[in-house]
Amino acid sequence: MPGTKWPLGRLAERLGAELRGDPDRVVRAIAPLAAAGEGDLSFLANRRYLKDLRTTGASAVILGPGDVDASPTAALVLSNPYLGYARAAALMVEPPAFSPGIHPSAVVDPAADVSPEASVGPLAFVAGGSRIGTRARIGPGSVVGPDAVVGDDSRLIANVTVCRDVRIGARCLLHPGAVVGADGFGIANDRGTWLKIPQLGSVRVGDDVEVGANTAIDRGALQDTVIGDGVKIDNQVQIAHNVVIGADTAIAGCVAIAGSVRIGARCIIEGAAMISGHLELADDVHVTGGTAVAKSILRSGVWSSGMPAQENHVWRKMWIRMQKLDDLARRLARIERQRQENGRQSDD
Amino acid sequence: MPGTKWPLGRLAERLGAELRGDPDRVVRAIAPLAAAGEGDLSFLANRRYLKDLRTTGASAVILGPGDVDASPTAALVLSNPYLGYARAAALMVEPPAFSPGIHPSAVVDPAADVSPEASVGPLAFVAGGSRIGTRARIGPGSVVGPDAVVGDDSRLIANVTVCRDVRIGARCLLHPGAVVGADGFGIANDRGTWLKIPQLGSVRVGDDVEVGANTAIDRGALQDTVIGDGVKIDNQVQIAHNVVIGADTAIAGCVAIAGSVRIGARCIIEGAAMISGHLELADDVHVTGGTAVAKSILRSGVWSSGMPAQENHVWRKMWIRMQKLDDLARRLARIERQRQENGRQSDD
Amino acid sequence: MPGTKWPLGRLAERLGAELRGDPDRVVRAIAPLAAAGEGDLSFLANRRYLKDLRTTGASAVILGPGDVDASPTAALVLSNPYLGYARAAALMVEPPAFSPGIHPSAVVDPAADVSPEASVGPLAFVAGGSRIGTRARIGPGSVVGPDAVVGDDSRLIANVTVCRDVRIGARCLLHPGAVVGADGFGIANDRGTWLKIPQLGSVRVGDDVEVGANTAIDRGALQDTVIGDGVKIDNQVQIAHNVVIGADTAIAGCVAIAGSVRIGARCIIEGAAMISGHLELADDVHVTGGTAVAKSILRSGVWSSGMPAQENHVWRKMWIRMQKLDDLARRLARIERQRQENGRQSDD
Repeated sequence: MPGTKWPLGRLAERLGAELRGDPDRVVRAIAPLAAAGEGDLSFLANRRYLKDLRTTGASAVILGPGDVDASPTAALVLSNPYLGYARAAALMVEPPAFSPGIHPSAVVDPAADVSPEASVGPLAFVAGGSRIGTRARIGPGSVVGPDAVVGDDSRLIANVTVCRDVRIGARCLLHPGAVVGADGFGIANDRGTWLKIPQLGSVRVGDDVEVGANTAIDRGALQDTVIGDGVKIDNQVQIAHNVVIGADTAIAGCVAIAGSVRIGARCIIEGAAMISGHLELADDVHVTGGTAVAKSILRSGVWSSGMPAQENHVWRKMWIRMQKLDDLARRLARIERQRQENGRQSDD
Repeated sequence: MPGTKWPLGRLAERLGAELRGDPDRVVRAIAPLAAAGEGDLSFLANRRYLKDLRTTGASAVILGPGDVDASPTAALVLSNPYLGYARAAALMVEPPAFSPGIHPSAVVDPAADVSPEASVGPLAFVAGGSRIGTRARIGPGSVVGPDAVVGDDSRLIANVTVCRDVRIGARCLLHPGAVVGADGFGIANDRGTWLKIPQLGSVRVGDDVEVGANTAIDRGALQDTVIGDGVKIDNQVQIAHNVVIGADTAIAGCVAIAGSVRIGARCIIEGAAMISGHLELADDVHVTGGTAVAKSILRSGVWSSGMPAQENHVWRKMWIRMQKLDDLARRLARIERQRQENGRQSDD
Repeated sequence: MPGTKWPLGRLAERLGAELRGDPDRVVRAIAPLAAAGEGDLSFLANRRYLKDLRTTGASAVILGPGDVDASPTAALVLSNPYLGYARAAALMVEPPAFSPGIHPSAVVDPAADVSPEASVGPLAFVAGGSRIGTRARIGPGSVVGPDAVVGDDSRLIANVTVCRDVRIGARCLLHPGAVVGADGFGIANDRGTWLKIPQLGSVRVGDDVEVGANTAIDRGALQDTVIGDGVKIDNQVQIAHNVVIGADTAIAGCVAIAGSVRIGARCIIEGAAMISGHLELADDVHVTGGTAVAKSILRSGVWSSGMPAQENHVWRKMWIRMQKLDDLARRLARIERQRQENGRQSDD
């Protein structure tokens, strides 16, 4: 992925990094240590790759102060090299070409308000009453429903569905297959059959939000589902109706969040975690991968559950023992009781 | 979400509710207790919100007989207020405008049979041999494959895929990204590589079924996958080939149902549960969230598994103990054995 | 599903089966034992269905040597009847009709290279710089991004998204809603907010790969995500950035694979399993359904975790005991210690 040429001196300045090496040396691309060559910038953020540093062909490496001496090449020294890499990548990589306008195959309802600086891609549909902001991009095959809003500089990559009335903020990124604003799962039981409850709320997505591929965010039953500013959501995530997620929370792939859950700011929900309905998570809660959250977490901290994989025969044995756990506890209590009685007898 | 005007007297009559208040007072919209104002109808179905009732600005509230005295406003009294709310919402909310016809950008194969009272939205495709029923609506970007059927009054919201030969009943609702009739995962191992087994069955979806966003229901291998009447399926659900689901069963988000599972009528499968292949679940089985069903459940009841989240350090300690459970059980058995031997000696 | 007529003699020859019966008898379709009639071929691969064999109306049955005597009809005898069924189905079922060409409603960028023998379906979009191979089929509503490649004989069923630069090999099958090449979930924390890391790699999918409905495979951060030849992936699977999957591995529905995981060849990952980031799985590893893999598995074998469902009151009791497991272990250790001390005293 070639980018523009960056002299190391200028790059160091932009990153706030200390430069060890020739400020006029130029990098043009980013590559992992083991694959990097002439003109490549690399980084060391995980000591596991220290051996790759020693033999790298990179023209420069972003690294922490402790690793400078191990570098065979120019070094950009930063206390957080991973963040430095993120910043360098953002600087060096040219954004994909973008030309505004409505593709002739797109269908834009005359009652839609599409910025002349926005683009609507091939075979995309923008319904009446909707508003597409400045430099927003509606990718091929995407659907923007009636009265929906897509904010300035936001992007629907392809085959994204934004349902009626949904509001997407500025600088958001929605990946293919994402669905924002489908009906929440509201049903009431009427003597054995289910009556659908109209889902009258919508979804409000803040600014700088990312929504992963095939992720679904449901509209609220009466009020809106709310995704805070700066929230990052990975693929295949399910966010049910009336959920409220605080700013700058990150949610990894395959997480399932049930209805009316309230999640605080700056939380990290790792992959495949599940959160039961109507719970509250405080700010700065960290839920590890695969964890089943079954009651509210009212203070920050790291929360976990689940059994890691074992060899099948070991797991089987454990499972058999677990099923006998109640019996085990009763037997132990009986022994304790008898010992106590015996003890008392001895004291007599 | 404004609706038509409903005098309370008329509403009470339609709901079969006892009215405490002025029958001529009018409501036009539904709102939660805490947010409701003049002209709003609200409801109290969960005692957790009792304090909101006392201060609500709603013009009327649906509630149970025990909460009448706490209401500061007109009350519609019903034994099941949640069901009453569902019914009131269905009455009061005007369905989205619908005009039949085929959008000029849609592609309808000449060999398709589309009711003149149906609608086919922008950029939707309806293949040859398919049949679209009266008042059915094929939303933007949706695809209906060859020889498929979409029943009367059914609706594909947007970007839905109904594959060849699939039959969707009447009054169904398929949300964006839903896929009905993709191939089941049938593969046979041939000395290390996989041979695909053609999936020759299809999917039969009954009447009044709801299919959530990005849910997938696979076609059968030789016979059809069958979804019974009145089944409600939430988002991100996976239903594998040859599954049969009985009438009025409800399946929440992210549930995974493996191949050839047979689920009875009126079951409730909560979110993120998983059901292994070839199992049978009786009628009226309730599986709680995140549960892993690994053998058939042949009688109704509530079934559960899984470990709820704990603070990470507590969980770690538990996990270490669990791995030593076999050792623990052996040590306890040894003590019991020795005590028995000692007991016998004492008896001598 | 009628196919061409197959005399049993010719079919036996093609399958390498021993025929017990009239070589001129003809079969035209495949059906399960219980449903099969005149002209149908069936199979017995699971002894559970032995009773169906005895009463089947099938014209012929594929079965193992041990079951020949139980068959009331002609038999095609093979050591692996399931594989025989797969082969027979592949032979007998006519592939769906296919005529090359670009549908008038499709949008193909002039800078795309589409084989004249390929087909591009209704309302599909093929971007500039991409290449569509011989006999490849881009189904309705699908999107092929800039500079992507779809290999010979590969098929995107409908509403599939292949993002920019992604390479799909030959003879692949991508089901509806599949997304290949969305951005990986790369974010770096900058004093509480998240900075997106540009995802500069792509996805390389080998030959003969199947990708299920609504499955997502992310592009790599710096290098490519790689799916080996012959890999079979079911629905709703999440494959994160930089994952490498070896040839002929099979992954069932709802599996979640986190970033930078390396999976060997010929592995079987059953449904709803989850694999944490940066782990390595050796060749021929088998992970059972719902298992949480939390550390690398460096040798082949079967790995498991999780608690199967129990009746709710049994599960509750177990969960209470599990939370007291540490206490239980301490109490047992105390008894052992006391007994040892008493034992020493007795020895005195």
